[in-house]
Amino acid sequence: MSAAHGYAAQSADQPLTAFAFERREPGPHDVRIEILYCGVCHSDLHTARNEWHNTLYPSVPGHEIVGRVSAIGNAVKGFKVGDLAGIGCIVDSCRECASCRAGDEQYCETGFTGTYNGSIFGGTENTYGGYSDQIVVDEKYVLHITHDEDQLAAVAPLLCAGITTYSPLAHWKVGPGSKVGVVGLGGLGHMAVKIAKAMGAYVVLFTTSENKREDALRLGASEVVVSRDPDQMAAQAAKLDFIINTVAAPHDLDALLNTLARDGTMVLVGAPATPHPSPNVFGLMLKRRSLAGSAIGGIRETQEMLEFCARHGIVSDIEMIRMDAINDAYERMLKGDVKYRFVIDMATLKA
Amino acid sequence: MSAAHGYAAQSADQPLTAFAFERREPGPHDVRIEILYCGVCHSDLHTARNEWHNTLYPSVPGHEIVGRVSAIGNAVKGFKVGDLAGIGCIVDSCRECASCRAGDEQYCETGFTGTYNGSIFGGTENTYGGYSDQIVVDEKYVLHITHDEDQLAAVAPLLCAGITTYSPLAHWKVGPGSKVGVVGLGGLGHMAVKIAKAMGAYVVLFTTSENKREDALRLGASEVVVSRDPDQMAAQAAKLDFIINTVAAPHDLDALLNTLARDGTMVLVGAPATPHPSPNVFGLMLKRRSLAGSAIGGIRETQEMLEFCARHGIVSDIEMIRMDAINDAYERMLKGDVKYRFVIDMATLKA
Repeated sequence: MSAAHGYAAQSADQPLTAFAFERREPGPHDVRIEILYCGVCHSDLHTARNEWHNTLYPSVPGHEIVGRVSAIGNAVKGFKVGDLAGIGCIVDSCRECASCRAGDEQYCETGFTGTYNGSIFGGTENTYGGYSDQIVVDEKYVLHITHDEDQLAAVAPLLCAGITTYSPLAHWKVGPGSKVGVVGLGGLGHMAVKIAKAMGAYVVLFTTSENKREDALRLGASEVVVSRDPDQMAAQAAKLDFIINTVAAPHDLDALLNTLARDGTMVLVGAPATPHPSPNVFGLMLKRRSLAGSAIGGIRETQEMLEFCARHGIVSDIEMIRMDAINDAYERMLKGDVKYRFVIDMATLKA
Repeated sequence: MSAAHGYAAQSADQPLTAFAFERREPGPHDVRIEILYCGVCHSDLHTARNEWHNTLYPSVPGHEIVGRVSAIGNAVKGFKVGDLAGIGCIVDSCRECASCRAGDEQYCETGFTGTYNGSIFGGTENTYGGYSDQIVVDEKYVLHITHDEDQLAAVAPLLCAGITTYSPLAHWKVGPGSKVGVVGLGGLGHMAVKIAKAMGAYVVLFTTSENKREDALRLGASEVVVSRDPDQMAAQAAKLDFIINTVAAPHDLDALLNTLARDGTMVLVGAPATPHPSPNVFGLMLKRRSLAGSAIGGIRETQEMLEFCARHGIVSDIEMIRMDAINDAYERMLKGDVKYRFVIDMATLKA
C-alpha cells in the first residue's frame, strides 16, 4: 500500500476536509496515476451529501481525472511511465456480461465499480475518487489523452460531462443534417452544444434564462429558445430530430417533447431527485416519439470521444479552483454560478 | 347524395339510436362499400360519450370496417364492383407532408381525417363511420382483403386493433429471437400476442388477472406474468427486448420498464384519461431504455398487415352482435367482458 492524500466528506452534513488514506500497490495490470486535475461534477455533491441515499463514508469524490502515469504493473501494455492518462466514472466492471462484452461497461449487468462510492448497485466496498493526489486503476479502464498538454485541465470534464453527452449523440446517430435540441446550459449542456455542433448538427439551445443567449451562440448553438416563452416554444413545434436534456430539476417534459418531429427521441441524462411531471401519452403517440435515458458511456466510447474532441479542438470551459475551495465551489454550483465546470488544480492539495 | 342508415349518438349522455343521413355520390377516385361487418373499438365509446372532449354530434362511430364494393368512380384503378374491401381509421390526409409522402398518414402533419369525427386535430367538418350500411372513400384509403370470405367478420378488428399492434412491432423490428412483452389481454393485446408470435418472437403476456393465463397461452404467449405479483415481475427483470403496452388505464410503468433489457423500448398504444405515474428516470438511464408511443398505422402498412395476417391465418377472436345491441356491448366492454372484440353484423341494421 502507498500513502495517498485527498479531500473527503466524513458525513452528509460536514464540509469536505483533508483526508489521508492508502492506495494499493499496482498489480500486474494496474496503472498508477499522479493526478494533476480533477473536474467537479454535480454527482460529487449529490454523493458527498448523501442525496441519493447510498453514500459510503468517508467519501472522496471526483471522476473527471487527468494526470500522468507514475508507475505500471509488469503486464501493462498500453501505458508507460510519463504518459498522460485519464480516468472517468468507471474503474472496474464484471467484464463478462453482454454489456461489458459489447464495450458498454456503463450498463454492466452486475453494476460497474464507480471511481468513487463503490458499486453503482450498492455494496460495502468503497472506492476513493479523484479529489486526491494519486489513483491506481486497471489499464483496461484508463484512457489515453491526445489533446495538447496545455489543455489538460480543460480536458478533465470530458471524462464525465463530455462522455455523458457524446454517448447519446453518437448512439442516436446525430450527424450532418440533424436538428438537435440541447436543454440546459450547464456543465453537461455546454459540452452537448460543442459536441453536437462538431458532429455537424444544427443546434437549438433551450434555456430558462435569456441571459445565456450570447454564450450559447458563442459555444455553437444556431438558435436559442427561452423555454418559458410559449411563443418561442410553439415556433419549434415538431422541428427537432433529437433532444438531449441535461436538466436534473423536475420540469415539464411535454413542452419539449412537442418540439420533436415524427420518430424523434428526447434523452434524459440527468435524474431528478423528485419525478418530472408525467409525460402526456398522446404527445408520444401522435408522432411516434420516444423518451429515453442514457448513462455516461463505455471505455471504448470514452476513448473515441476524447479523440473526437482533440480532433475538433473541443475542451470544457472551466474555472480553476484550489482544493480547499471545494466547499465554496459546491455552493456556487447550486446557484448555477460557474461557466461551465470547476476543475481542481491538484497541485494545491500539497501547497 | 345517397341515403345511408346507421346508428348515432346525438349527445354524450344518450344511447346510440337509429340515424338516417346521406353519403356523397362516388367521385372519380371514390369507392362505395356496402358495409358487412364493423368492429367495436374502445375509441368508439370514448367518442360517443365525448370522453376526449372533441366529439362532433351526431356521432356515427366505427373504424373497423369490412364490406363489398358496390360502386366505383370512373378513375378508380385498384377496385372493381364486387371486391371485398376494408376501411380503417383514416379516410383522408393532406397527401403532401413528409409523413404522408412516407406513407405514414397516421402522422399527417396537418392531421388525418378520421373515419368518424372528422380531423384528429379538430375542426368542424364531421365524418360518419362504420356503424352504417355504406361508406364512400377515396380508393387511396381503401384496403384489399385477402383472407377467406368466411373469415370476414373476424377480419374487421384488424383494421384498428390489428394495425395498432402490428405497426410498432414492425417498426421496432420484432422478429425471430425477439423477446416481446405484451401488457393487457384485451382487443389490442390479444392481437399483439398473435402477431408477435407469428413474427417469430417469444411472447410474455403481462396481465393483472391470473384467470387469463390459459387463454394467453392458447393465443400464442410462451409465458404469462401476473403483474400484481412482485416475485413474478422480478423474475422478468431486464429480460425483454420490446414491450407493447395496450393498457389505457393509468398504471405503474416502472415495474414494466424494469423488465426491459439494455436498449429496450416500451411502446404505449393506449392513452389514459388521467396520466400514468411519472416514470423513474434512473430506470431509463441505467439501461438506456426508451418509453415511446405509437398510433395505428399508415395505409401501405395496413395493407401489409392484412396480407401478413392472411398468410399466417390470423384473425381476431370475436363475439358477433346485432346493431341494436351496441349500447349493451359498450357496458360489457367497460367491464372487460368480451373475448376479445365485438363485431356488428351489419345485416341486422335492416332486419
